[in-house]
Amino acid sequence: MKNYWLRDKIFLRTKKTSPKNEVSLNAQLLIRGGFVDKLASGIYEFLPLGWRVMRKIENIIREEMNRIDGQELFLPALHPRLFWDKTGRWETMDDLYKLKDKRNSDFTLGPTHEEIITPLAQKYVSTYKDLPLYLYQIQTKFRQELRAKSGILRGREFIMKDLYSFHTDEEDLNDYYEKVKEAYWKIFERVGLRDKTYLTFASGGSFSKYSHEYQTLTDAGEDTIYVCQNCGQAINQEIKDETPKCPNCGGSDFKKVKAIEIGNIFKLKTKFSQAFDLFYTDQNNEKKLVVMGCYGIGLNRLMGTIVEVWHDQNGIIWPKEVAPFQIYLIELNSQNDQRVGQKAKEVYQKMSQNGWEIILDNRQSCSAGEKFADADLIGLPWQIIISPRTLEKNSVEIVSRATKKKSLVSFEVENIEKFLLENEKD
Amino acid sequence: MKNYWLRDKIFLRTKKTSPKNEVSLNAQLLIRGGFVDKLASGIYEFLPLGWRVMRKIENIIREEMNRIDGQELFLPALHPRLFWDKTGRWETMDDLYKLKDKRNSDFTLGPTHEEIITPLAQKYVSTYKDLPLYLYQIQTKFRQELRAKSGILRGREFIMKDLYSFHTDEEDLNDYYEKVKEAYWKIFERVGLRDKTYLTFASGGSFSKYSHEYQTLTDAGEDTIYVCQNCGQAINQEIKDETPKCPNCGGSDFKKVKAIEIGNIFKLKTKFSQAFDLFYTDQNNEKKLVVMGCYGIGLNRLMGTIVEVWHDQNGIIWPKEVAPFQIYLIELNSQNDQRVGQKAKEVYQKMSQNGWEIILDNRQSCSAGEKFADADLIGLPWQIIISPRTLEKNSVEIVSRATKKKSLVSFEVENIEKFLLENEKD
Repeated sequence: MKNYWLRDKIFLRTKKTSPKNEVSLNAQLLIRGGFVDKLASGIYEFLPLGWRVMRKIENIIREEMNRIDGQELFLPALHPRLFWDKTGRWETMDDLYKLKDKRNSDFTLGPTHEEIITPLAQKYVSTYKDLPLYLYQIQTKFRQELRAKSGILRGREFIMKDLYSFHTDEEDLNDYYEKVKEAYWKIFERVGLRDKTYLTFASGGSFSKYSHEYQTLTDAGEDTIYVCQNCGQAINQEIKDETPKCPNCGGSDFKKVKAIEIGNIFKLKTKFSQAFDLFYTDQNNEKKLVVMGCYGIGLNRLMGTIVEVWHDQNGIIWPKEVAPFQIYLIELNSQNDQRVGQKAKEVYQKMSQNGWEIILDNRQSCSAGEKFADADLIGLPWQIIISPRTLEKNSVEIVSRATKKKSLVSFEVENIEKFLLENEKD
Repeated sequence: MKNYWLRDKIFLRTKKTSPKNEVSLNAQLLIRGGFVDKLASGIYEFLPLGWRVMRKIENIIREEMNRIDGQELFLPALHPRLFWDKTGRWETMDDLYKLKDKRNSDFTLGPTHEEIITPLAQKYVSTYKDLPLYLYQIQTKFRQELRAKSGILRGREFIMKDLYSFHTDEEDLNDYYEKVKEAYWKIFERVGLRDKTYLTFASGGSFSKYSHEYQTLTDAGEDTIYVCQNCGQAINQEIKDETPKCPNCGGSDFKKVKAIEIGNIFKLKTKFSQAFDLFYTDQNNEKKLVVMGCYGIGLNRLMGTIVEVWHDQNGIIWPKEVAPFQIYLIELNSQNDQRVGQKAKEVYQKMSQNGWEIILDNRQSCSAGEKFADADLIGLPWQIIISPRTLEKNSVEIVSRATKKKSLVSFEVENIEKFLLENEKD
């Protein structure tokens, strides 16, 4: 990724108000900040700034998936009907987009990929030596959501990371399931959501007692969860009636809150291997069904949740690892004082060469107020201001977006960099 | 990307023969080598090895697009019909996939994105100060191809890089068009296709005299081009009748050859800005139509063309920058000589830590012949062989996949690395 942009060259137009038909806070802020635009209900365009955020989230997820030995592949979006007939989901899944080609063959646009990856694994796996196997992709899904009023939290077209694991037995599945749990915590830590997220027991479907969801506290959440006041794990309302005590610690003191599911992990066991004849031969030459797990994270939803959690009345406050750039560099009154533009350019060039990601707001036609408002709305972690006033003191002003703390720092690039590194947690 | 894999852990099963229903050479080799698998006619799955190649191609293209100031964004695949009605292409483009949602609204799956990006630009561009603008994406396209018999050269679902440029006037478009030409040459150089590729005059449609295609010489090509023997540019057969002389140099001595189009660049001029009211105000406050260009590269096709050009009777010969890994490390007879496995592991670990991308073929159940055959089929640039025989000479054997040249190199990791760097061109 190119790590520097001039504000007057970037494809970015901020707005003071948000579109009237956009009721969700995440989409309002993301549209106002020039991160996304709406093409149709539940269908969003990612503009350069928003796409940078998505790519950062994508890379964090990829790193953590690779760390637990996931192998990345890429499966198609167009699925012939026959795969979906095998599991019966052609009829039972009601948010499938369905279409016909010119030869009148039926296709669906993949809302998930169990129906595709299981027969693929079936071509590959023959003995226990081929297991375990961990395959994932980061790819576009399609779901015909009727209530698409949650901005990018619930889209009709969205990018998802889906990991599938294949095992000889349930014990091996259970071991890997725990590894994925940890990988998910690392991901949510890095994107800034761990502190507000609860591991939540949810329905395991017809074949497993429980699945787990990662639920993040926010008023925008469509789910209700009960947080165990003893251990900090939670129960999804959908299973609360049949689960009066905490399955983790046995506690019975709960707090009811609204939350949004940002990830889920699920023991599929043999549901799909059965449907697609996915067998292996064990050490004793016996034929057995492969045991499977699946693990999803919706990237659009993750980005939307970050905005729901990290904002104030002025705009977004991006956590550092997912911010599209690190620094919003503002030059003020450069038309009246040549040194301002020179100094800003120097800081911009040297620091971007050193790897800092910077937007330089060099616009001549904007007031200081407009530049500050944009800086807050766009929400990069640091704002650096260079003006005739700061130059008089041989300084720049550095503002932390999160804490609003202002510091005057001596204007040599080394000093600025030192300050930023020392105050990383601000 | 994780830069090392053990052969017995990787999701990779090579085949001695290719599926009977697969007539194209690229798909035959890619399926046999475990790079892709076929889900349906014209719809391919990218397995871990193949996906690594795609990601390398993607990154090369991204770097070269960023270098000419392209800003990356990401547009949806689901397009509401109204955008396609505005240009009339809902009716006139015959390879559109069409579908309805539950509310009976019409959608198409984007086969290209002029209909989406032009109205997006229209929301952003108001004066000449907002121009020029260069926007691109790397994203999945859908085209209902009837003849899908060319493997991954012509898919129904494929990844494309599409760049769109927006200008105040044709002169500015022409300048940028030349820059894109150069960027394309750099891309084709890096993926190993430049020497076999010809800049080719093609039809400019109803609004421009010519467009340009990049045509690569290969028997698998579906196009016929006439290469000017004077200047080395070419003319597509489709316009040969009305273009008897070379538009570049005036020459009239041509060689007729088969080729495949791996990229095209097109002056759209005002065709789409007219359809979507994309105007700007110039310095004199006059309202004018924005002038556009578009520039495409199909990633799947590029990968397929590389295979068509770079192979021999034993398998693929990946150019270095797109090879999924750099080194295929083979241990032979490690079951009979413990030192072999130890040395292979040491080379594998140290070199992967130093950034080399390596597959270690540590399989105990395979013959030497099977390992060599796999190494040739998969086609990584270097094969390194460690056996009791090489260890006797304190050496490893290094084989260049392209030249088949064999060298005995002293087995310290520093020496191996030095040899590889010094012989990079082999």
